[in-house]
Amino acid sequence: MIGHLVVVGVGLIGGSFALELKKKHLVERVTGVGRSRANLEKARELGIIDAVSGSVSQAVGDADLVLLATPVGAMAEVFRAMAPVLSPDCIVTDAGSTKQDVVAAARAGLGEKIGRFEPAHPIAGAESSGAEAARAGLYHHKPCVLTPLPENAAAVVATVRDLWRACGAQVTEMDAARHDRVFAAVSHLPHLVAFALVDELAGRPDADTYFRHAGSGFRDFTRIAGSHPEMWRDISLANRDALAAELGTFIAKLSSLREMLAAGDSQALEGLFARARQARHTWIKGRQH
Amino acid sequence: MIGHLVVVGVGLIGGSFALELKKKHLVERVTGVGRSRANLEKARELGIIDAVSGSVSQAVGDADLVLLATPVGAMAEVFRAMAPVLSPDCIVTDAGSTKQDVVAAARAGLGEKIGRFEPAHPIAGAESSGAEAARAGLYHHKPCVLTPLPENAAAVVATVRDLWRACGAQVTEMDAARHDRVFAAVSHLPHLVAFALVDELAGRPDADTYFRHAGSGFRDFTRIAGSHPEMWRDISLANRDALAAELGTFIAKLSSLREMLAAGDSQALEGLFARARQARHTWIKGRQH
Repeated sequence: MIGHLVVVGVGLIGGSFALELKKKHLVERVTGVGRSRANLEKARELGIIDAVSGSVSQAVGDADLVLLATPVGAMAEVFRAMAPVLSPDCIVTDAGSTKQDVVAAARAGLGEKIGRFEPAHPIAGAESSGAEAARAGLYHHKPCVLTPLPENAAAVVATVRDLWRACGAQVTEMDAARHDRVFAAVSHLPHLVAFALVDELAGRPDADTYFRHAGSGFRDFTRIAGSHPEMWRDISLANRDALAAELGTFIAKLSSLREMLAAGDSQALEGLFARARQARHTWIKGRQH
Repeated sequence: MIGHLVVVGVGLIGGSFALELKKKHLVERVTGVGRSRANLEKARELGIIDAVSGSVSQAVGDADLVLLATPVGAMAEVFRAMAPVLSPDCIVTDAGSTKQDVVAAARAGLGEKIGRFEPAHPIAGAESSGAEAARAGLYHHKPCVLTPLPENAAAVVATVRDLWRACGAQVTEMDAARHDRVFAAVSHLPHLVAFALVDELAGRPDADTYFRHAGSGFRDFTRIAGSHPEMWRDISLANRDALAAELGTFIAKLSSLREMLAAGDSQALEGLFARARQARHTWIKGRQH
């Protein structure tokens, strides 16, 4: 049981975490911190939080758990603000999409209190945002990756793990560098590719002709190009090394595909298509969410 | 009114064309030709066709309209077989996804009768196939591109145009080379990119870790990698010049994106993402299907 939970950034991600823990009676009292007073008041009306605070340093003094659910670019400042007032027993965690940059910001901001911070990444992307989008149930059957630090006591990791499990998430652990490589490949790269294709066609003088003949395959392929530009700018830069490496690998893959085409190598093309189709089929069959 | 329609390849595409024209009383009698006797018998049971024939040259002698709805790789042989028996008033059309290769096959096979052939590409992709997948209504509000030949009399083009309009399709016209460039960009390239990404990840020793953390964005982005390998091998090779050119352009686009990342150019990244999002939003709003 968590006595006092402080959520910094009460949107879809932070709000849904608070709602689920309240519903399960795993938290007594929730304080919301954020830049938009209107959003915080809405969150209180909706019963997501019990109290509103405009200041991290005022809110976290007697907190038992702090969840950072702001954009990753805003976290460095939050770590710095909380460091002086954090009680020795308070546990800090986050919900950022990239991990190495958040860990670096936490080390810089928290200093010797770094062992209290257990990084996490719940995967429940949605295009809606703000407190009104929050709901209990968001994390049911969704993956949540923890990237524990060498400085974390086992009990700190266990507490964060148990809370995400209580939210219904499927919790796994890996180190932060590996997390960033995996998500560069399965999430960040596809986003960049989708943005790039739409921008390439939109920039042509006869763009209308292209879009007029695009069908449902194009619609689904480019759905993620409807994501928030600022958010994806931040994620791209936060994970730029891993993402640039994946982009390089993928450019090489496409170049080899172009060589197969130039050579008219029907066997190699069909082999690649068939392997991909089979791998995707196996993945879809095994998905639980 | 078409007296005798011959459909070569009675699957989703050819069968749905016949069903819609029958429903609208625009055709008196339909003969189906194909390699699978079982599929043709099923088509007759379902009322898609009235008669079955195993031979193109026997079927088309008294035909008023012939629709080729086989894979594009099989069309050259069909054109050759029908050429000697085609009546002077019979109109021939097709439903292939690529046009320059089909036109070349038609010129080679039909010789001086080439003016009777009006090429067409109805866009109504679906993952199901065979006569059982056919249905009236498939083409409602779907694009259909005609690529008329210089040899076509205006009346030949008008007849094919009117029939596709009667099927509910939105008919446009462009030349075959332009058609192939447009579809290389909006359909063939996305398919190759989706196949390539899945194959790249599936080939890694720790592929399981990647797929386990892939979410709904990855699912939609790669949906088209579930398409038929043989069909996409044929389309890729049939349109290889235009597709290789699009692949080259796209590789250059991704390389410039990698440079933005390496330079940490947040403004350029956000600008590209924002333009793409806006262009996609405008496209989605204007779509009627």
